[in-house]
Amino acid sequence: MSNIAVYPGSFDPITMGHVDIINRLAPLYSEIVILVAQSAQKQSLFSAQERKELIETCLSNLKNVRVEFFEGLTVDYMKKHNAQVIIRGLRAVVDFEYELTMAQINKKIAPEIETLLMFASPECYYISSRGVKELAINGGDLTGFVPDVVKEAITKKLRK
Amino acid sequence: MSNIAVYPGSFDPITMGHVDIINRLAPLYSEIVILVAQSAQKQSLFSAQERKELIETCLSNLKNVRVEFFEGLTVDYMKKHNAQVIIRGLRAVVDFEYELTMAQINKKIAPEIETLLMFASPECYYISSRGVKELAINGGDLTGFVPDVVKEAITKKLRK
Amino acid sequence: MSNIAVYPGSFDPITMGHVDIINRLAPLYSEIVILVAQSAQKQSLFSAQERKELIETCLSNLKNVRVEFFEGLTVDYMKKHNAQVIIRGLRAVVDFEYELTMAQINKKIAPEIETLLMFASPECYYISSRGVKELAINGGDLTGFVPDVVKEAITKKLRK
Amino acid sequence: MSNIAVYPGSFDPITMGHVDIINRLAPLYSEIVILVAQSAQKQSLFSAQERKELIETCLSNLKNVRVEFFEGLTVDYMKKHNAQVIIRGLRAVVDFEYELTMAQINKKIAPEIETLLMFASPECYYISSRGVKELAINGGDLTGFVPDVVKEAITKKLRK
Amino acid sequence: MSNIAVYPGSFDPITMGHVDIINRLAPLYSEIVILVAQSAQKQSLFSAQERKELIETCLSNLKNVRVEFFEGLTVDYMKKHNAQVIIRGLRAVVDFEYELTMAQINKKIAPEIETLLMFASPECYYISSRGVKELAINGGDLTGFVPDVVKEAITKKLRK
Amino acid sequence: MSNIAVYPGSFDPITMGHVDIINRLAPLYSEIVILVAQSAQKQSLFSAQERKELIETCLSNLKNVRVEFFEGLTVDYMKKHNAQVIIRGLRAVVDFEYELTMAQINKKIAPEIETLLMFASPECYYISSRGVKELAINGGDLTGFVPDVVKEAITKKLRK
Repeated sequence: MSNIAVYPGSFDPITMGHVDIINRLAPLYSEIVILVAQSAQKQSLFSAQERKELIETCLSNLKNVRVEFFEGLTVDYMKKHNAQVIIRGLRAVVDFEYELTMAQINKKIAPEIETLLMFASPECYYISSRGVKELAINGGDLTGFVPDVVKEAITKKLRK
Repeated sequence: MSNIAVYPGSFDPITMGHVDIINRLAPLYSEIVILVAQSAQKQSLFSAQERKELIETCLSNLKNVRVEFFEGLTVDYMKKHNAQVIIRGLRAVVDFEYELTMAQINKKIAPEIETLLMFASPECYYISSRGVKELAINGGDLTGFVPDVVKEAITKKLRK
Repeated sequence: MSNIAVYPGSFDPITMGHVDIINRLAPLYSEIVILVAQSAQKQSLFSAQERKELIETCLSNLKNVRVEFFEGLTVDYMKKHNAQVIIRGLRAVVDFEYELTMAQINKKIAPEIETLLMFASPECYYISSRGVKELAINGGDLTGFVPDVVKEAITKKLRK
Repeated sequence: MSNIAVYPGSFDPITMGHVDIINRLAPLYSEIVILVAQSAQKQSLFSAQERKELIETCLSNLKNVRVEFFEGLTVDYMKKHNAQVIIRGLRAVVDFEYELTMAQINKKIAPEIETLLMFASPECYYISSRGVKELAINGGDLTGFVPDVVKEAITKKLRK
Repeated sequence: MSNIAVYPGSFDPITMGHVDIINRLAPLYSEIVILVAQSAQKQSLFSAQERKELIETCLSNLKNVRVEFFEGLTVDYMKKHNAQVIIRGLRAVVDFEYELTMAQINKKIAPEIETLLMFASPECYYISSRGVKELAINGGDLTGFVPDVVKEAITKKLRK
Repeated sequence: MSNIAVYPGSFDPITMGHVDIINRLAPLYSEIVILVAQSAQKQSLFSAQERKELIETCLSNLKNVRVEFFEGLTVDYMKKHNAQVIIRGLRAVVDFEYELTMAQINKKIAPEIETLLMFASPECYYISSRGVKELAINGGDLTGFVPDVVKEAITKKLRK
């Protein structure tokens, strides 16, 4: 039995919401792979390489977590690396329906792979990468929304 | 009493979800009009003509179904052709609110026209034209998501 | 092709919400059967006979509507009377999920029967039989929530 | 105790839904500030100046309402003008989650500021600025969706 | 302009969720009336008198808050005391639909009365009187769910 | 690292929905404990002993699944048996909110325990113990809703 959990996402950038999920996940699996989507379609604030480095900096204390890039379908990564469990965070009803659709599509393509969901902690319910970027653009203080290193990175990026 | 049902949509492209709705609808009305939106605004993968042809190929077995183009408001088509019933498929709560809004707007503009809704079958719940296109772009297998002829058409279109 | 629609419910009592659905439904089918559930389980304010009579009084102007009792599964009634279409009103998201579940169960038991849904009109969105009864118990004015004859019947019933 | 309510939004353009909220709000506060978002990001049909003027024309009968521009975070405007209450209209579940997220973000940035929500009236449930613009583009009649002066302004704008 | 807010509910018993709403509400109105429903229908753990006393003990620090009983419709209390604003807390989508229905019913009966909603704070999202009672019955620790005085009262009540 | 998953519920009776979740769960953990709630409050069709035996009969093919009774809070069972993961099935939005509330309550009482959620398979979306019982009472055929042994047990039970 493989005991790997794959946590895929854009992480553009990693927020306190992601950090919360990963910290709670780490004790439950022998290995956590954070899978950074390298989509050519969606425009991102940070490059995939920058997003990977920010995650690694924020989670350096967790010994069983590693960060990977991947282009294409998450289930293709899973099959290649013999992983069975996709983890997704759930915040709201709108998330719920998106995640349900994604999980069913993945199940149809790769029936041996399962998606498990973890609720966001109440104090992270309202935190999303998109919200964080909007807040930053409008001059809001990001303290408590993202780790400090991410806060600095966003400030630097937007100053350009 | 006119016994025509109009099923409007983008159908970019037709999916197994649409096929399911139309197959279940066909025995309930003497005539089904599939109304392909010819919107100039939204960018589509297939042209309106291509979408119409794909639908006609997939549904050639249903004798009381025909496919039409229309630009503008669905209710204007309805009035012109003396049709009273718009049919819409319902998958999720997010759909529900969009459909409710559309139905109320149509009711205000054309009080004599009614919108009736049909739930997607469980095995089609997670299928949408948008999801199918994303899956195709990421190299996923479309078998079971769209009819075979549509699968080939997408493959050909994306290869260009 | 049978052109009968069956509109099942408890109708304890009929409200302006039901009246709205039935009035909009009447022009769309050659015959509407209002199917009053005669459940032995749920406690009702009015007897099935009283509920039937109230509906008949309120809808006497509609020539293609008739009211029937039925105990058991709606789909068993449908099969017996060769009807194919169940109509249900939709108000809110909570309704949506209940109706979805019911429609899927019915589809599994009787695949040839379809459920079509009609959105409540905005001005009836908040009207339910249960709400009407609570309002009446607390001394609220039922004008606009139920037809006048129902208002009188509730007042008389609660006075006992 | 300040008794000012701030009602922020894009108002591109003001609809009967906004007019309904503001009319119901006016008797509850000594002063209402309608705060027009001057976002550089989102493309708008009307300029901020035009939107402000349309609102002022539509609401000239309400003596305690004034219209302001603001760029940046609503809470920064609030702090500057010593206002404590943000008012937002609520139509549907999708709104609900967006508003919840916004309210929690604002609460974290500015704990002394509260968001209060007011449900849209049933007859305005389905009216949104975005829906109004789509309807106009497709040649639909805007009567009852927006005040007459807005209807004329949209017609003029789209003719260009 | 009356500046009274009425916050109605069962408060069986008052939870940290209610305390949160009332503390945030107190600075926004000159007077807050907590209206304890004295319903004869619903079975309550605490009598209306006990519930009132628990609220008064928990909120003795707030000078502009008082607690009242009322039997019947909230809007009848409002009219009698010349109050215009009902405040309700919102936690989830299920709440949302219930509150929407109640607000529309109240609006129909008493058009001059408005309902305003306040989102529960994230850390109170999951707290309800019903949940607290279930937790207590199953031997769970109520610390953080209800004020200490309520915790003791529940323990005493359940021991009987 | 303990690799036990606890799947708590009433299982009154076990349905094809539960069977689906457990079959998909079995390959992901070294041990699955199905925890049958022995609540004195809720009235059940089958006794806890009967429910346990039905589950054991239906799942005898799964070697790493065992069934246990428990009275009280699930988290108390978890602590006693050194388990960290609660698994819950998710069908609809209404489930979502209930599960979110339960997960947050459990997190507050026992921060080291995590709840993970698994979506019902599309073909089980509409199956619930309660629905199955209603269907049986109204004479509906339970084939496909519950395992055959459960179907017989319900028939026998209702005949009494």
